[in-house]
Amino acid sequence: MKRIGILTGGGDAPGLNAVIRAVVKSADRHGGYQVLGIRDGFEGCLDPEGVVELTLDAVHGILPRGGTILGAANRGNPFARKVIRDGREEMEDVSDQVVRRIEQLGLESLIVVGGDGTLHISLELFRKGVPIIGIPKTIDNDIDGTDVTFGFDTAVNTATEALDRLHTTAEAHHRVIVLELMGRDAGFITLHAGVAGGADVVLIPEIPFEFKGICETIQARAGRGRHFSTVAVAEGARPKGGGQVFRSSGDELVTARLGGIGQTVSDYVEEVCQIESRVVVLGHLQRGGSPTAFDRWLATRFGAAAFLLAVQRSHGRMVALRGVNVMDLALDEALAAPKRVDLNGDGVRTARTLGLCLGD
Amino acid sequence: MKRIGILTGGGDAPGLNAVIRAVVKSADRHGGYQVLGIRDGFEGCLDPEGVVELTLDAVHGILPRGGTILGAANRGNPFARKVIRDGREEMEDVSDQVVRRIEQLGLESLIVVGGDGTLHISLELFRKGVPIIGIPKTIDNDIDGTDVTFGFDTAVNTATEALDRLHTTAEAHHRVIVLELMGRDAGFITLHAGVAGGADVVLIPEIPFEFKGICETIQARAGRGRHFSTVAVAEGARPKGGGQVFRSSGDELVTARLGGIGQTVSDYVEEVCQIESRVVVLGHLQRGGSPTAFDRWLATRFGAAAFLLAVQRSHGRMVALRGVNVMDLALDEALAAPKRVDLNGDGVRTARTLGLCLGD
Amino acid sequence: MKRIGILTGGGDAPGLNAVIRAVVKSADRHGGYQVLGIRDGFEGCLDPEGVVELTLDAVHGILPRGGTILGAANRGNPFARKVIRDGREEMEDVSDQVVRRIEQLGLESLIVVGGDGTLHISLELFRKGVPIIGIPKTIDNDIDGTDVTFGFDTAVNTATEALDRLHTTAEAHHRVIVLELMGRDAGFITLHAGVAGGADVVLIPEIPFEFKGICETIQARAGRGRHFSTVAVAEGARPKGGGQVFRSSGDELVTARLGGIGQTVSDYVEEVCQIESRVVVLGHLQRGGSPTAFDRWLATRFGAAAFLLAVQRSHGRMVALRGVNVMDLALDEALAAPKRVDLNGDGVRTARTLGLCLGD
Amino acid sequence: MKRIGILTGGGDAPGLNAVIRAVVKSADRHGGYQVLGIRDGFEGCLDPEGVVELTLDAVHGILPRGGTILGAANRGNPFARKVIRDGREEMEDVSDQVVRRIEQLGLESLIVVGGDGTLHISLELFRKGVPIIGIPKTIDNDIDGTDVTFGFDTAVNTATEALDRLHTTAEAHHRVIVLELMGRDAGFITLHAGVAGGADVVLIPEIPFEFKGICETIQARAGRGRHFSTVAVAEGARPKGGGQVFRSSGDELVTARLGGIGQTVSDYVEEVCQIESRVVVLGHLQRGGSPTAFDRWLATRFGAAAFLLAVQRSHGRMVALRGVNVMDLALDEALAAPKRVDLNGDGVRTARTLGLCLGD
Repeated sequence: MKRIGILTGGGDAPGLNAVIRAVVKSADRHGGYQVLGIRDGFEGCLDPEGVVELTLDAVHGILPRGGTILGAANRGNPFARKVIRDGREEMEDVSDQVVRRIEQLGLESLIVVGGDGTLHISLELFRKGVPIIGIPKTIDNDIDGTDVTFGFDTAVNTATEALDRLHTTAEAHHRVIVLELMGRDAGFITLHAGVAGGADVVLIPEIPFEFKGICETIQARAGRGRHFSTVAVAEGARPKGGGQVFRSSGDELVTARLGGIGQTVSDYVEEVCQIESRVVVLGHLQRGGSPTAFDRWLATRFGAAAFLLAVQRSHGRMVALRGVNVMDLALDEALAAPKRVDLNGDGVRTARTLGLCLGD
Repeated sequence: MKRIGILTGGGDAPGLNAVIRAVVKSADRHGGYQVLGIRDGFEGCLDPEGVVELTLDAVHGILPRGGTILGAANRGNPFARKVIRDGREEMEDVSDQVVRRIEQLGLESLIVVGGDGTLHISLELFRKGVPIIGIPKTIDNDIDGTDVTFGFDTAVNTATEALDRLHTTAEAHHRVIVLELMGRDAGFITLHAGVAGGADVVLIPEIPFEFKGICETIQARAGRGRHFSTVAVAEGARPKGGGQVFRSSGDELVTARLGGIGQTVSDYVEEVCQIESRVVVLGHLQRGGSPTAFDRWLATRFGAAAFLLAVQRSHGRMVALRGVNVMDLALDEALAAPKRVDLNGDGVRTARTLGLCLGD
Repeated sequence: MKRIGILTGGGDAPGLNAVIRAVVKSADRHGGYQVLGIRDGFEGCLDPEGVVELTLDAVHGILPRGGTILGAANRGNPFARKVIRDGREEMEDVSDQVVRRIEQLGLESLIVVGGDGTLHISLELFRKGVPIIGIPKTIDNDIDGTDVTFGFDTAVNTATEALDRLHTTAEAHHRVIVLELMGRDAGFITLHAGVAGGADVVLIPEIPFEFKGICETIQARAGRGRHFSTVAVAEGARPKGGGQVFRSSGDELVTARLGGIGQTVSDYVEEVCQIESRVVVLGHLQRGGSPTAFDRWLATRFGAAAFLLAVQRSHGRMVALRGVNVMDLALDEALAAPKRVDLNGDGVRTARTLGLCLGD
Repeated sequence: MKRIGILTGGGDAPGLNAVIRAVVKSADRHGGYQVLGIRDGFEGCLDPEGVVELTLDAVHGILPRGGTILGAANRGNPFARKVIRDGREEMEDVSDQVVRRIEQLGLESLIVVGGDGTLHISLELFRKGVPIIGIPKTIDNDIDGTDVTFGFDTAVNTATEALDRLHTTAEAHHRVIVLELMGRDAGFITLHAGVAGGADVVLIPEIPFEFKGICETIQARAGRGRHFSTVAVAEGARPKGGGQVFRSSGDELVTARLGGIGQTVSDYVEEVCQIESRVVVLGHLQRGGSPTAFDRWLATRFGAAAFLLAVQRSHGRMVALRGVNVMDLALDEALAAPKRVDLNGDGVRTARTLGLCLGD
């Protein structure tokens, strides 16, 4: 009986359970493989009770469920693991322990499902001899080697539905409502949901914005009888110059209240555009929920493809979607550069063609 | 042709459009009545363009939509309307203007759909001779004269779905997640959603809480292998003594960061219970969205019942749900006392029976 | 350690798992009680492996899930159990076996969650000495002793959402779409969803209908420029006279195609009203899905209340909702008469006030 | 002021309104263009009242709504239009009338949103000089020139959610439930939803199936303690040999009841596999509902891209998605061949890797 390991790392993303189930069902169908689940990312390699056998029973009924039955600890970088020593927090390199544990478990392949951070760690471990097969996972869609990852579609639907909800309230109350969405460096969720949810202003990290463009858009709408607007803003969007401070039309300094960029934009709208404004921070709601059909379909394909790579002992690879097909590529190639919204791509072009305010 | 007016006031609540549609369809069916919609609450009585005829075409397709096609301004108290005079904000009593406008429009009845505030204003106007018929509307469920109002069920479903989403993430990441819900004075949304969404801790305005109970619950769960918990807290929930300040086990003073009670509870959990915690503030998402079947069914029944009262010229009344039937009662009786969660009712008893932490 | 048993019987209804979880959590909280789950309704009493202990772990994560972890066999009437003997199907009375098994298990109380059929069986078993506590469950809402049961709200929402979906297609394609809903004898789902989903025609078992009224409604709408209509029809709705046959305006005989009443109504509309029509039979989709917040809230309250009755050894009772409170009443009283749509109630009155066609 | 026309044809698909809105908003933003909407497909060209100006007001609020505000008649093939002459149905070629009407309207471009049928008609009209720009639309995903069309993602989500609902009921009642999905010639909806919804058997038109494989799968599951299964079957799936007739194990002839392939499969399961089975036909529910975020995002990009083609007077082209980008290609190239499920693609491979029964 050969052994395959699987672990999930990093932030939560709908579809993780679908991947785990796909690997276990594929192994059961193929025969000759035992699947071991490692708990809480690489942490499970450091814990004598951190490894469980994954049978068909263990994955029964998990396809539609968010989260991950394996857990996903956050301090799990084995090259720089947080420990408290003499009351102080230190970083410790426990990667050799992890490598030994994986050897000791006799894993022919270790499937790692993770985002940019977890996959970079996996690449380092691969270089130390661990038989890694990577599966990309991020709600932010910021991994370059694949057209898209699972979790993203669910997050965009959650954000779009939130804009739908806020839209009718904004209209009824003649208000601006600002929705702050996830995305520190990549604006995909905000751009896609902003367009899909009919936002009037869409602010993303890739495009530093000017406050006054927001006001012009809102006032132009009011001039056409639309006394309300909705704004979708990524948490990582920043005004040109990078400041968190803006000036009102009357040269009065307005400092941002403690809070994210969503709050800042909302304050600006109220104080400068003189229209009532509210902010909603969607936060962790974007990471949960039952995965959409697309995310389950993609996650299941990724799981099956990773299992087939394991059968071929094809390590140091990452599965990826290109067009309509799942393929695989070298992990280092996949991670060479982070992915950002293409300012010349048709998504941004669409937003401009429709006249959405992107703040520039 | 007799004339009936209708207006919607106060905060947004899913089902307002269903009420408007029901009144218009009922009038069309009955014959002999024209329905006039007054825009933006009582504000529309002060604006020459604030009144529109509501035909079948005007209400076509609005049943499943949140918001209100009539708008609902917030400064609409005609007894104390905000005006800017000589650069200062003042309150002005424009109620006589409102009364005159309603007389001038020749309204045989004026159906007012509103919450506690709008209905109290309506009662005063009724005492000044306006032929008011009230329809209660509040997502908070804090109007005593009726078992429940429309909007509440949708809000509870939205909050419950949020808890579902957060639950799997909390479990996967071994975290506490705190969900702050609407309810300044009444804890119905939080209690219902907390129970329906499987929260471990439920904090409502009616029950001042002690921080330590929260910690005990979370730690008891951890002791049983559940290294995560979810907390549902109403925005109006307050610790015993009323402070926003809590002490850690080591007597170190921990002051609350700027933010609502959800943030405070989350900070406490992190610093005192020593478990990672996140907060999500659901905010205006609770006021929007397509109304649930129950809210549409109730709103439509309220609209039809109010129209039948109008036909009977039965003024100064409010429609209400009692058990499975819609009836009506005197507006002053309905508003005599606000409704709060019954501490001896079976909702609280259920929470206690299951062992949920209510903080006391 | 005292023992409580619990079983679920009859057709599926969202909320069954919420009940089971509530009983188990209540027992854990109270202490001193072990909960045994009996599989597949009363069938589990006949199977040596038909009883499982229900711990907190067993009910973890089941609150939002449809179905029942205990199973719910359909042939489970122990007074008339289907058996195959000598190749022929016979009925056998195995109720004494069931009674003995329950005694042997040492159950102080047996909580039975079921519909009209299962509860009648439970009443007979109670008369034979079984310490029954009943919890009503039916998506049809046809149990008289309670204002409403869990499962109904979810079913109505599913049906209403289906009407929403079909409405825009009917409008775009100038068609009639007929939605056949569950309800052999009681029209609650159809009436509530029909009103909430904006159906133009609502046909329920309690009101025998005439085909021509349907046509008049559809044609009157076309006359106002609405070249489409939606029809909600309960599977048990029947034309006056009871026939499955209708005549066209030209006296030509039109026989119904094999299929339910939905197909018949759709055929009639196409052939007599001369407007394209489609039928959708919602079927088992109404029995599944994650329970709504209301159904989880009600199911959890029912479970907690039933546990409290068990503690009091108050047998032969059924928990029930009256207004906003859960109470209990004698099982025989609760089952004395089935519940049907009240033709003088405000639901039917609302439909008539709005001008919906009820077929009479 | 230049003029652009737009019409929607063929079966309903969520996202049509998003396309219309995108074209109108883009034209408004660009300036210099008036958008005319043609009602009910090409039918609107034959009706003096069949053309309406589409302003920003006309498209306000339609983004999240299913259906099409322009209507989509079914008899709209102008090359073979159904007419009743002397009591008999005949086909009439009215394409010249359509061409003249479009000339008379002075349309610089005509954007046609339609499926395979409507786009083939458009290609013929383009050859007769009509300045066509095509936008593909089909829930079936059977247009070869594009990776995917809008409407498909919504349909797959609806079908997947249906499988979720049925799964728990099948499990609780130890039944097979068969879900019949749309797809006469292409099995994309069934394959994607079948995998995403965890179906055990997936039958598509591209793979003629053998009944016995279904039974083996169901019985193998029962042997592992899973006394239930779900089956996703496309309406166009057919048994090998093409018959609608199957034989039971005892050589007894079992003829299919009137009904689709879903009913046939369900009958077979009941009679041959000897396990209770139910069928649900999802039907038109797949064509309706608010479009998913992906479908709105894609439809909006298609609309903007088509408008940009119109500005360039680039006719005879169709917009399409390739990978993550929207591009355009010649209409005749796009329609050269219909698209079918690739039997060697990774979708089918995934299903086989996981051990789903595809019937072959």
